[in-house]
Amino acid sequence: MNYSNQQSIRQEPGAGQALDLPPAAQPTFGPLTSEELRLAVRNHSMPLEALRRGVTPAGLHYVLTHFDIPDLDASAWHLRIGGAVERALELGMAALRRDPAITVPVTLECAGNGRSLLEPRPLSQPWVMEAVGTALWTGVPLAYLLGKAGVLPDAAEVVFTGADAGVQGGVPQQYARSLPIREALRPDVVLAYKMNGADLPPQHGYPLRLVVPGWYGMASVKWLASIDVVKTPFTGFQQQVAYRYQDSADDAGTPVSRIRVRSLMVPPGVPDFFTRQRFLRAGPVMLEGRAWSGEGAVTTVEVGIDGTWLPAHLDKPAGGYAWRRWSLPWVANPGEHALSCRATDITGATQPLQQAWNFQGMGNNVVQRVNVMVE
Amino acid sequence: MNYSNQQSIRQEPGAGQALDLPPAAQPTFGPLTSEELRLAVRNHSMPLEALRRGVTPAGLHYVLTHFDIPDLDASAWHLRIGGAVERALELGMAALRRDPAITVPVTLECAGNGRSLLEPRPLSQPWVMEAVGTALWTGVPLAYLLGKAGVLPDAAEVVFTGADAGVQGGVPQQYARSLPIREALRPDVVLAYKMNGADLPPQHGYPLRLVVPGWYGMASVKWLASIDVVKTPFTGFQQQVAYRYQDSADDAGTPVSRIRVRSLMVPPGVPDFFTRQRFLRAGPVMLEGRAWSGEGAVTTVEVGIDGTWLPAHLDKPAGGYAWRRWSLPWVANPGEHALSCRATDITGATQPLQQAWNFQGMGNNVVQRVNVMVE
Repeated sequence: MNYSNQQSIRQEPGAGQALDLPPAAQPTFGPLTSEELRLAVRNHSMPLEALRRGVTPAGLHYVLTHFDIPDLDASAWHLRIGGAVERALELGMAALRRDPAITVPVTLECAGNGRSLLEPRPLSQPWVMEAVGTALWTGVPLAYLLGKAGVLPDAAEVVFTGADAGVQGGVPQQYARSLPIREALRPDVVLAYKMNGADLPPQHGYPLRLVVPGWYGMASVKWLASIDVVKTPFTGFQQQVAYRYQDSADDAGTPVSRIRVRSLMVPPGVPDFFTRQRFLRAGPVMLEGRAWSGEGAVTTVEVGIDGTWLPAHLDKPAGGYAWRRWSLPWVANPGEHALSCRATDITGATQPLQQAWNFQGMGNNVVQRVNVMVE
Repeated sequence: MNYSNQQSIRQEPGAGQALDLPPAAQPTFGPLTSEELRLAVRNHSMPLEALRRGVTPAGLHYVLTHFDIPDLDASAWHLRIGGAVERALELGMAALRRDPAITVPVTLECAGNGRSLLEPRPLSQPWVMEAVGTALWTGVPLAYLLGKAGVLPDAAEVVFTGADAGVQGGVPQQYARSLPIREALRPDVVLAYKMNGADLPPQHGYPLRLVVPGWYGMASVKWLASIDVVKTPFTGFQQQVAYRYQDSADDAGTPVSRIRVRSLMVPPGVPDFFTRQRFLRAGPVMLEGRAWSGEGAVTTVEVGIDGTWLPAHLDKPAGGYAWRRWSLPWVANPGEHALSCRATDITGATQPLQQAWNFQGMGNNVVQRVNVMVE
């Protein structure tokens, strides 16, 4: 098998596809497994109180790492751009930093966010609902570098390969994903070397990552090693097997792409350590949270209070693909109350009250519910 | 109940002790609960590959937050020092930054690290084994400020209260812990405002925290609001109820204090995404990890390879209470291999092969085992 991330092994796009794939693990009604717990402690959620912040500090932003976090030396790092281009390029970090840079505020969410709430539960990273975060990403527009390389007219997709390597679904691989040419040439798709104004932290892709605004996080390849322009659709594991909306293991399904509309609330009051039950003093309180969609602007957020939906105030958006703050003043009366929030975007899509199920647990955006004891 | 972290409520030491404590939840042989999963996703482990780094980047260092992470304004923040002192003090962050500063490299570990591996399993944060990290903490020596305030001769302990508030074990509380006077006056105990050279991140106690080298993490109170010198032992929840070595719920137990000797290994090779099974190419590989003890210097690390213990090379320690790198070259032959590591400290304490059980799941330091498939 070919699975080193310490040597400079370069996987050809599509290589490493095993023909003898083991049957995919079946979703379960059973309890959480030790494998899921190990993933849950490795991969970091954003604590919901961080929704108070428009920009998520790096250490609070969600992180999903398929394999291990590579320990890379930026001074020796080179990005290779090749394939169906007029001029193949190889660029060091110093050269990339001299290119024109943009800064884009982007909300990223894991495509599997909310998976652990599904029944039966797909066996993978068991997110609850906090696999999200918003950061300011600074770097070179991908379109600028593709322009420098010169994309050939019959190019179909651009494949991005990271330095992170391992085995998934029986397939040894470096993490790799593709984008259609039209998405890759969007002006806001960035090869980022800074997050919130500082060098990328190791877990967020140091020294260089892709950020694709509007798409679920799997598209924003970290520890970016190479970019290949290809003439036929990429068939790597993370494109063809993982990250698909499937009804069953046998269903070829459709690819996961843009982030579905979603909102989350800062749980008001204070928590019980173990149960996370919330306690709140009676009186006025500002309910607040953030809402986002990869399909376009969020147009409405409604807050449910004991079953009645009220329209929230929406702050101005910070960017086309960054979350929007919402708020609603509430006078909390003693007793137990059920709070929720529901966003709608410009396409008319709205969050479901019950999550539709799919085989990999992708694209969940069910309404969040928070129970509060007011005293 | 008194449980606001948004208002400036100051809890008197010992206040908030409920007399009608609910019976402590009993440890379980059952599957992981949804409460434990919610804690597992909120609280962050250090991915084991970060053991390659002598200093853990802030976003990879373990984090345990009992309640919510407070969102504090450093410019309005004041530390109050009072109680059994000659002069009560109230200091803003600007004043603290003008005081003499030290930088201390410290390994912090959660006292409950490894809890999820116990049978029966105490119901709390379900750490696997990665609740650890080492950082450079910069700030004012606590002894300097206690000297400024003038500790009265009959003082017994120093109580530290954070701004984080909530309910635990039925008790509304701000997080608070004490240290005996002799520990509080150690020259390396620091009121830190920097971690690894940058302002503290929110989850690590911004704008100010205590760091007690050698002690499990519960002593290093974050979001530090007040310091009270007291003449009688502190009886707050986190001192008298939580963080004790108990045989059962009825056992008063003994307090948790210093970190027991432990070592961990960077799992060699690359992982399977879901099972975390490791795959490695046959040939030479450097096994490496870190070892630490709060009781004194680590003197030996042995590496177990298929049941045979071999002595590892130990690098120089980075400080009295920072972990030490260990390494051992290994020639990996094809087949499945069982690796482990075991540290011993200067007191003669060594890691157990089987973990002794206690009611809260505290102070676990069982030998880590890593299975590797070599091909």
